Parts: sequence; C-alpha cells; structure tokens
Amino acid sequence: MTAGRLDILREWMVAQNLDAFVVSSAANVRYLTGFSGEGMLVVDQGVTLCTDGRYTVQAAQEAPWVDVAADGGGHIANVAARLMDDGVARTGFEADVLSYSSYQKLVQQTKGIELVATCGIVREHRACKDRDEIALIRRAASIADDAFATLRAELQPGISEREAALELHHLMVRGGADRCSFETIIAAGPNGAKPHAQPGPRELAEGDLVVVDWGARVEGYCSDCTRTIAIGAPDERRREVWRAVWEAQQAALALAGPGVACRAVDAAARELLAERDLAEHFGHGVGHGVGLEVHEKPTLSASSEDELRPGMVVTIEPGVYIEGWGGVRLEELILITEAGSEALTHAGYDL
Amino acid sequence: MTAGRLDILREWMVAQNLDAFVVSSAANVRYLTGFSGEGMLVVDQGVTLCTDGRYTVQAAQEAPWVDVAADGGGHIANVAARLMDDGVARTGFEADVLSYSSYQKLVQQTKGIELVATCGIVREHRACKDRDEIALIRRAASIADDAFATLRAELQPGISEREAALELHHLMVRGGADRCSFETIIAAGPNGAKPHAQPGPRELAEGDLVVVDWGARVEGYCSDCTRTIAIGAPDERRREVWRAVWEAQQAALALAGPGVACRAVDAAARELLAERDLAEHFGHGVGHGVGLEVHEKPTLSASSEDELRPGMVVTIEPGVYIEGWGGVRLEELILITEAGSEALTHAGYDL
Repeated sequence: MTAGRLDILREWMVAQNLDAFVVSSAANVRYLTGFSGEGMLVVDQGVTLCTDGRYTVQAAQEAPWVDVAADGGGHIANVAARLMDDGVARTGFEADVLSYSSYQKLVQQTKGIELVATCGIVREHRACKDRDEIALIRRAASIADDAFATLRAELQPGISEREAALELHHLMVRGGADRCSFETIIAAGPNGAKPHAQPGPRELAEGDLVVVDWGARVEGYCSDCTRTIAIGAPDERRREVWRAVWEAQQAALALAGPGVACRAVDAAARELLAERDLAEHFGHGVGHGVGLEVHEKPTLSASSEDELRPGMVVTIEPGVYIEGWGGVRLEELILITEAGSEALTHAGYDL
Repeated sequence: MTAGRLDILREWMVAQNLDAFVVSSAANVRYLTGFSGEGMLVVDQGVTLCTDGRYTVQAAQEAPWVDVAADGGGHIANVAARLMDDGVARTGFEADVLSYSSYQKLVQQTKGIELVATCGIVREHRACKDRDEIALIRRAASIADDAFATLRAELQPGISEREAALELHHLMVRGGADRCSFETIIAAGPNGAKPHAQPGPRELAEGDLVVVDWGARVEGYCSDCTRTIAIGAPDERRREVWRAVWEAQQAALALAGPGVACRAVDAAARELLAERDLAEHFGHGVGHGVGLEVHEKPTLSASSEDELRPGMVVTIEPGVYIEGWGGVRLEELILITEAGSEALTHAGYDL
C-alpha cells in the first residue's frame, strides 16, 4: 500500500537538492513504510528505520523491505550514524516535529552535514488520500455509524457520560475497529460548552442536549463524526440553536468541493451563525483533514491558506458553545471528489 | 493539589536568572495548573495559559486562578504576546518538547528577548511524587489489579487478543478508571516476541504464553503492570524462561531503593538473565518512572544517570523476547520509600 509514496518524496528531494531526508513524525513513518511503532526514518539511497529493541520484530513484519538500525544509543544516534555512514552532504528534517534539543543533538552528531529545516512535506502528501486509504476510512466511518445507531437507542436519563462512552467503545471494537480514533466526547447539558469535554460521572437528564463526538480506527485510519441529540423534549432555545448549527453545517457542506478555499468553507458556516447572533460562540475552525491522524491537513479555518482538492477527507463541524448553558456541534466526515463531495459518515440527524 | 509546584519552579528560575519560563509539555502544564487540555503556559510574575477557544471554559473550571490567553493566532503567538507585554528580558523554554519550527517562530515573535534552552526541569520535579499523586497512582493500580483478576478467570482458548483487551478496558472503566493509561498489550504465542504488540485477531491457544501489559488512569495518573500467563500447561522451556524472568525481576526489586543507581537495578536483572544465556533477548531497559505520563523520569536502563529517590514511582519489568517463539515480561509498579520500596501492583504471579 505504501508503494509509490517514497518515489514522490524522492522526486521532491531531488528538486530540493537533498541527498537524504529524516522523518520523525510517527504518522509519516507509517505512511511511508507501514511500520506502526516508534522510530525515525532515514530516506537516502536506501531506507533505514532507526528504532530500538522493542520494535525490531514488529518492523521486520510490517516493513520487511526496510533496513533496521536499533543500536542502543537512541533513535537520534542511529539516524546520525546512518547519515554519516552513507556520506550524506545535505539532509532535510521535519522542523515542525523534531524537538529543538533533538535538532541540536543531530547537529552535534553529524558534523559537516547540512541540515535543512522543512515543514509539512509528507503531511502535505498525506492530505490527498489514495483508494486504499479511502477504503479504510470508509470502513472506520461505517463501523462508527453502526455503533452510534445502537447507542442512540440505548441513551436515556440516568446513564452517565462515562458509561455511554464505554458502550460506544465496546460497540466499535466489537464492530471491527482496532480502537477509538480519539477519546470519545460525550458532553451532557452544561458540559457541552466544552468542545473537548471528557466524559465524566454526569448522568443524562431529561431536556439535556448531549454532544457525542466519536470515531473508529481501522489499520491506523480514523473516522470522526459528531451529533448533538436531545434527551426527552428540548426547549425552544435548544431547538433554535441546534437548527442554526445544522444550517451552518449545511451551508459549509454545500460549498465544499475541489478548488474551494478552506477559509471560504469556514466563512460560509460562520456567516450563517452570525445572522443568528451566534458567531461569537463558535470558537474553533469549521474542520480539518482526517487520515492516519485525527487532525491533519488541510485546516478549515478563517486563517487557512489551504484549498480543497479531490481525495481530501475533511470534517465539517460548526458548533455553538455557551458557558453555563451547553453546546451544539454537528460534524460530518466528507470526501472531496472531482464533482464536489461525498459524505462518509451517515449517522441520523434527528435531534 | 498543584500548590507549591510553581514556587519550586520559580525558585529555580531565580537561580537561573530567568524572568519567565514557557511550558509546552501537556503533562507539565497539567502538573503545574491542573488544566488537562491543550495549551502552553507562561510563568513570569503571573501565570498565563495560552490556548484557544476550544478550552476556555475548561480552563476556567480546572485552573480558575490562571490567566487565559486564547486569541486566534495560535498558541505560540499568544505566548509571544504575553512575554512581550510583560517586558520579559530572558525566558527559559522546554527544548526537549518544543519543536524546532515553534522555537523559530518564538524567536521571530519575541525580538530582543533571550531564549534559554532547558531540558527536563519540570519533568525532574515530577519524578518524586507527593502524597496526593501517590494516592491516585495507588487507586489506578488497585483498579487495574481487580480488573486483571476478573479477566484472568475468563481467559481460555478461543478468546482473541482483541476481545481480551476490550474486556480489560471494560472492567477498568467500570471499576472507576477514567480510561486505560495506554493501549493494552495482549500478545499470545509468537506475538509475545514483540514487546509493544498490538492486540489482534489471534485466539489464545492451549500451551500459549500470553503477555498482558495494562494500566488504568485516574485523574491523569497512570498505573502500569505486566503479567505473563499460560493457557493450559506450558512446556518445559516456557516454564524455564518464565522462571528466569521472574528471578531477574526479583533481583531488581530486591535492589531497588533510595540512593541506588538506576543502572545498577537494570544490571541486576540483566546479569541474572545473562547467567541463563537469555540477556541477548532482553532488548529494553528494566523500567521507567510512571505518573501523569506512562513513561517519565527516571529511566532504568544500562546507560541511565538517574538515581532512585523516595517518592519515585517506577516499573521493574525485565523481559525475554524470541522471534518465532514468543515472549515473557513481568512488570511491577513500585514506590521508592525511605526504607526501600513498596509494590503498588499486586496481581498474582501464577504462570
């Protein structure tokens, strides 16, 4: 599945006059090699995974075509040794991932080698998914949909946020997920005002809005979806806010397609909430890419410079958060196609 | 619970002639403030949490005494603005956490401010736990013990690694854990040769050794424990290797206490395995600190410069991993006391 990805990286390296590239992001290492443990990659004439004794057997299974360097001195020392042994003159590294002190160690241990700071090169490649990746995300999304449908029927007053999150985890793993793609958010009543609330002991109560943000992970690939549901009959204000968020989401979904500026999609949702005097309560961007990481390129926000392209998988998730009152967020995971977009998540929208 | 921790940091800052310190490790931010979301901390005359709109309500709840800066330009921009506004001349930053490109942004946005690279200052403070922290780790370990005792009775041929991991998760959360402290490892038969194996579809089979490495998390604090058990009757070789690892662990446990060099504890286990011709199969350090992170200071390995001190909570976990055959690891979580050490995990050792 990783075939061809190194070729693209190497073409870029030639254009940048780099004879090596050091990959330190775990998701990028996995993308390029299939190896899912901890380690760093040196790409030059060969491909070397610099890791340690905990991962040698795993590396041989997951990426048998890769050289493995697992001497005890640490990953950076293994990277430096390989660069020196291979006579590298000029190497790129991931400046947005490597820590400042790891960079300094690399400088000290690679005397004479020019280190070139780069940002987001492999992440940028990862933004547009290939057929295999889309199939895995589709599967993850489908598992998540099914689990939510079952959970939805079980939610009632008296169940705690934590119990509901546990049940959703159970349903997803039973349904074929390796695990949750992130810690499930189940935020009832006033807790909904925290976009990244952690499920706690609060029990769902009559009249609550409950924000459920969940995803499944399959072979490393994530899904991501949010629904906000009511326990019993919501009051008029809750219906209004929910409706406004839904309309904002529909406006953004309608706009999302190839060639569209990500900030325009954000603006579409934000303008609609502004018309309802709710924009001040929408304190995050409207979406983000999803793949091996649950947050990756592109970024859909007011300040984004990204543009949507076919093969991108992104969320569209406006929200309104009011301290002491609660919150509403609705999130769809979509695939950007040549013609427009396609929803990958299909959970029902009944309040 | 965080009272006093900032005082210790500020004393150190005075000694280093720093008028500010920037904290970017999530665990360090939580340790100093109680805030459990994403953000960076500026400690100078005041304390400012630089975050974004997703976390403002959460920050007000978890750390009400902290100033919050959540302007939209990003965490680094908020940090830089605060340092400039406060007229800081010389600030420390966490060089082992901050990425090289974030460091560069900070340089560009804080003209005239001297940035001093530091490593592990707060992590070092965190190595020795206070009474509240020990109580939480004790609770996490106890929940994990109880869950394992239940699981142990349920394990039999035909259950998959993944199902067993799901059950353990369920039992721990039902038992009061917020969640698992890391992704549970359940590695049956040959999979045991991978120290960090991920639970998969393999079913437990008669004669298998099964490595189970699991932990619970309570209010951010982790437990960590490993047992290796047999399904049915293990053969003579499996009994021998298990016994050798157990003896290596007991040797290390007997040595662990205040004032002892961490590398001596590692050596105690390694020497015993060497006597059994198994040392080449022990490819990782004998242990690590556990707290807000599942791997933290100190490091118990052959190259460690750390020394055990009262209040440290560390694992003792020798292992033997043989490709194609499987593995054995036995891990205890212990508290270093004035007198020696005390086990915090109590799962049975029956093979």
